[in-house]
Amino acid sequence: MIQSQPYQYRFGSEPLHGIVKSLNLPIQFEYVQEICIFEQLIKLVEISEKLENYSKYFTNSINKLEQLKPFYQTIQSSFHQGVDKKNEIYEHCHNIQNYIIQNQFKYLEHEKLLSVSDLLLVELLEIVNNMYPNILYNQYQILYQFLAKVLSNNVLQNYYFNVDFMMKDFSPNIKNAQNILKGIIQTNLPTFHDFAQCQGILYRYKEDGKQFPDNCPVSLFPLYINYDIINDIKKKTILQQKVVAKMGMDFEWYTGILGRLAKHDEFIRRMISIQAKVEKSQTKCPYTICIVRNDFLHHASLNQWMQVEYNCIAISFGFISDRVQKYHSLLFDSYYKQIRENYKVKVKQDLNHDIMVDALHKAYELYNNKNAIVLIITAEFEGNIYDQRYIEKGLAKLGILSKRTTFLRLIGNITSENGILRAFGQEVALVYFRTGYTFDQYENEECWSIREMIELSKALKCPSLNTQLVNFKKLQQILLDETQIQKFLNKDEAKLISENYCKIWGFDHEDQHEKLIEMIQQNPHDYVLKPQREGGGNNYYDDQIIPELLKLTPEQRTEFIVMERIKPIPRIGFMMRRGQLDIQAVISEISVIGYFINEGENILVNEVGGYLVRTKRYLDNEGGVAAGYAVVDSFMVADS
Amino acid sequence: MIQSQPYQYRFGSEPLHGIVKSLNLPIQFEYVQEICIFEQLIKLVEISEKLENYSKYFTNSINKLEQLKPFYQTIQSSFHQGVDKKNEIYEHCHNIQNYIIQNQFKYLEHEKLLSVSDLLLVELLEIVNNMYPNILYNQYQILYQFLAKVLSNNVLQNYYFNVDFMMKDFSPNIKNAQNILKGIIQTNLPTFHDFAQCQGILYRYKEDGKQFPDNCPVSLFPLYINYDIINDIKKKTILQQKVVAKMGMDFEWYTGILGRLAKHDEFIRRMISIQAKVEKSQTKCPYTICIVRNDFLHHASLNQWMQVEYNCIAISFGFISDRVQKYHSLLFDSYYKQIRENYKVKVKQDLNHDIMVDALHKAYELYNNKNAIVLIITAEFEGNIYDQRYIEKGLAKLGILSKRTTFLRLIGNITSENGILRAFGQEVALVYFRTGYTFDQYENEECWSIREMIELSKALKCPSLNTQLVNFKKLQQILLDETQIQKFLNKDEAKLISENYCKIWGFDHEDQHEKLIEMIQQNPHDYVLKPQREGGGNNYYDDQIIPELLKLTPEQRTEFIVMERIKPIPRIGFMMRRGQLDIQAVISEISVIGYFINEGENILVNEVGGYLVRTKRYLDNEGGVAAGYAVVDSFMVADS
Repeated sequence: MIQSQPYQYRFGSEPLHGIVKSLNLPIQFEYVQEICIFEQLIKLVEISEKLENYSKYFTNSINKLEQLKPFYQTIQSSFHQGVDKKNEIYEHCHNIQNYIIQNQFKYLEHEKLLSVSDLLLVELLEIVNNMYPNILYNQYQILYQFLAKVLSNNVLQNYYFNVDFMMKDFSPNIKNAQNILKGIIQTNLPTFHDFAQCQGILYRYKEDGKQFPDNCPVSLFPLYINYDIINDIKKKTILQQKVVAKMGMDFEWYTGILGRLAKHDEFIRRMISIQAKVEKSQTKCPYTICIVRNDFLHHASLNQWMQVEYNCIAISFGFISDRVQKYHSLLFDSYYKQIRENYKVKVKQDLNHDIMVDALHKAYELYNNKNAIVLIITAEFEGNIYDQRYIEKGLAKLGILSKRTTFLRLIGNITSENGILRAFGQEVALVYFRTGYTFDQYENEECWSIREMIELSKALKCPSLNTQLVNFKKLQQILLDETQIQKFLNKDEAKLISENYCKIWGFDHEDQHEKLIEMIQQNPHDYVLKPQREGGGNNYYDDQIIPELLKLTPEQRTEFIVMERIKPIPRIGFMMRRGQLDIQAVISEISVIGYFINEGENILVNEVGGYLVRTKRYLDNEGGVAAGYAVVDSFMVADS
Repeated sequence: MIQSQPYQYRFGSEPLHGIVKSLNLPIQFEYVQEICIFEQLIKLVEISEKLENYSKYFTNSINKLEQLKPFYQTIQSSFHQGVDKKNEIYEHCHNIQNYIIQNQFKYLEHEKLLSVSDLLLVELLEIVNNMYPNILYNQYQILYQFLAKVLSNNVLQNYYFNVDFMMKDFSPNIKNAQNILKGIIQTNLPTFHDFAQCQGILYRYKEDGKQFPDNCPVSLFPLYINYDIINDIKKKTILQQKVVAKMGMDFEWYTGILGRLAKHDEFIRRMISIQAKVEKSQTKCPYTICIVRNDFLHHASLNQWMQVEYNCIAISFGFISDRVQKYHSLLFDSYYKQIRENYKVKVKQDLNHDIMVDALHKAYELYNNKNAIVLIITAEFEGNIYDQRYIEKGLAKLGILSKRTTFLRLIGNITSENGILRAFGQEVALVYFRTGYTFDQYENEECWSIREMIELSKALKCPSLNTQLVNFKKLQQILLDETQIQKFLNKDEAKLISENYCKIWGFDHEDQHEKLIEMIQQNPHDYVLKPQREGGGNNYYDDQIIPELLKLTPEQRTEFIVMERIKPIPRIGFMMRRGQLDIQAVISEISVIGYFINEGENILVNEVGGYLVRTKRYLDNEGGVAAGYAVVDSFMVADS
């Protein structure tokens, strides 16, 4: 007998439990699936009128549903006659299931669009998938592929991942668990808001010229995952960091690749020009330190957490993430106690974002002067300042003092003599960059001179320019080429890491542009067009891609890459921004945070620690927490 | 050889260390005292011009200082000739010391006012007292008394505890440690501000109709104390709680005393009337639970921490206090590291404010229904809401859910049937009052009915009305009578607790009013006139007392008590309110937080846990944190 497993919060087993409980049916769990199918039918009939609006997307008319109505009515009436009819109900349920699978699925294989009953099948499959996450994927590959494909259809998503639809009660008597949760949250929202602040989940806002803290955008209910995923992506992040560390050592190699971009990109050009001086310098710092965040998103059709990108500079929300985990754990101990107990889930409590402090601490010690400071270069206004302050606090607890400043404020206040960097009169052991990763963050020539002065000094840099350079997406794309990744890893390692890589295409060879554009034109929803620069934003999706590409000259196209678009299946998300609740269909990105330290060609340290879950509206393409789209989240696992 | 001891932050030894260090004098520490005297002279001459403004307060003119000038000049010139002259310097210093003590102190005994050189003597004595806190008190009682008397003279205080004076550098070369600290704080104020928020030291503010958090007013440098004091006042608080617990059981006794006040005080009258019903009720809760805060202030002339009052309701800042201790500890590990090492001090890390959660948790369990909630009754707006939320969080972590509300919001939403109290449909195990301790907090008759309903129910109350009743200052005054305190404690216990009691006088007997008024008239600065009601504020000091008393009828006077005024010696305080620094002469109140639970006549639990340090401007008579006068502080102890 297969045991029920809780899934992402849209628990497939919710109505089953509900029905079993409310009817006092003395039945085995394996039968419940059928009842659930029945319940889904009721729901579908209820919403059939709404479906008419969507009929253009379905091959058959709404009449298809009519064909199912007799089954449905028979079941409904027998169901209402009491529990002694249950064998009859099950039989009918089986009949429906067989009918759907035999008649509909076969049909679907030959058509591109969906019938209403296909939609019904999707519902059924999603329930099965929620109940037995791996069984469908492992044993019914064709059904799983169908489900993932349908759920990642953009048009259908607008209907299916609609909050009203997802929040609908299963029947007047059987509530959707989401609504129970919604009730708990709405009743206690002021408490949850204050608790978040008490827990240190803070963000700085600007309004009417004033600055004040409020809660950092936060999820009120964690993601459900299998913990093996974390162990897996941690292992792969160690490898990824090894690759980044080694890439950064090979100036010839990466400038060879970035060289062409540099022609059209002043940012890359300037960075390479500074790094060229560093390479020749006699007084440069022998150490490279880099804090890395490796981002993963669930690709439903492969049932795999795919690497979205790695980031080598200004990794944020690590400490807030720690606090969110404690916060969710608190809610599970109290206001969500029933959910925790009913579904046997718990919030995993194993974060270690002190790894960011560890990284800076180890780097600081390599400089070997207890009187020197850590110089932190930030933007003038940082909404996420508390997350940064937690790092400063961590260093302070170790007796290491930091000085926060901006590039502009350093003008006239920074010197370098014989490699000794001094800022505001104090010797600098380590420069930690939380800005400087886009061209406009260097507001004038003096800012560039300061970056150069820093890079040429003996102070350690997190990151140093060479690791910042190998962060470019162009190089992330290169790694997809097996011969390239094997420059940095052995064959087994290369194979392991590549499992989680998306496909990426570049515009290096003009003769292939046409073919690439054609490929995108066929399924624009399956790709994303990204600029090579860092910092998020400015991506093109769906119908934006082709017009943008056609606007660009072949030369300009080389500044972009096209990436396979990762398509996760959304869940209902409860997000809180400044005390306001926002319920949406959401997806979650999981990131692993780690760091490495090199001394010349040797990797001295390569470790991973904390992770970060960011959850964003499914239908928004951009997803920054700072930009107001995403929230910081955590996850829950089975409590076995 | 006597070892130097750091004192409250106005370290007497600071200039000594500075001189020894800057001149590289290879001298023993015992000689440094003399150099310090010399330095004080230099300072006095420097400020002599300013002193003229104060000459009316001194018996002799500023010319007195002229008499000292020759000494001073000889020393200064020989001092400047180098370290080989040091024996000569010491000799001169001794001469000055002898001159002062022989000529000035003798004189002072016969005069009420002070000469400039008396002021010099005060400076000297304060330094000695700072260096050797107990020696002056134990071995030179007369000097100690003189010092305490002078420093508690209100007119002199305005001069002496003036920030400009206290912050003055000892010489151009030798900085006052306060200024070094001030420099550190000013440079890092934005960091300290953010760190405070990260540490959860939060308070809610209202501005332009908006509410937002900022830092709770906080001290940036802790009080220095001898840790024995904490052990001593904890022991005494246990006894105090025993007294309160027993007083609350004796309805006849306390209504006998409060009865007279009730005639003129509707608040007391109503409370007694409800309690009378409770006493007769058959369904009442058998348990009494009370969280107590016992406040102490240092009385310089007795070198004793005197009990200011005990409080039985709405004890606040317990959890913020925890966070302030961690915050100070962090600063001592980082920005104040030099101070910590130079003065061998550390922040004591032993708070246990979970005792407030423990108290409510134990009370909750006595009710014995895991589905019941804790009802927290507060004001509509609570600036100190985060401090309250920490308690809710603590309960939530134990799986106990709370419901915050106000008396007004309970109207129509609270019922009691057969002793079962229900609010908003949920059974209530425990009512925790954070309001309801002044008459105006009961906005209408329905609020009073709700209080009565609560008191008559089986739900536990923290505090229940009987313990709230014995909080009245009138009863605190009664305890000063030996026969009364011995009703509740044995002779030894009574003696122990009385050591820390101030003298209090009431206006019960009209024939003694005149004598009492006369006593106050002679030294109005040594008394404070307080109303019997709770909640802080509305006290009369100094020249306000007599006019107020004369305005009142003998009957009205019975609503007041006169209390011996506790006179501490201030230090320089660095206070931060919403990121702004405020440097002032300050004093600190230390409070012990504990609780007791009674079952009928048995005391089931009587424990103390955390403590709270509140620091306020010396020259303000009122000192509430919530009222914006005081800040939450912590203390440091010798790091031996």
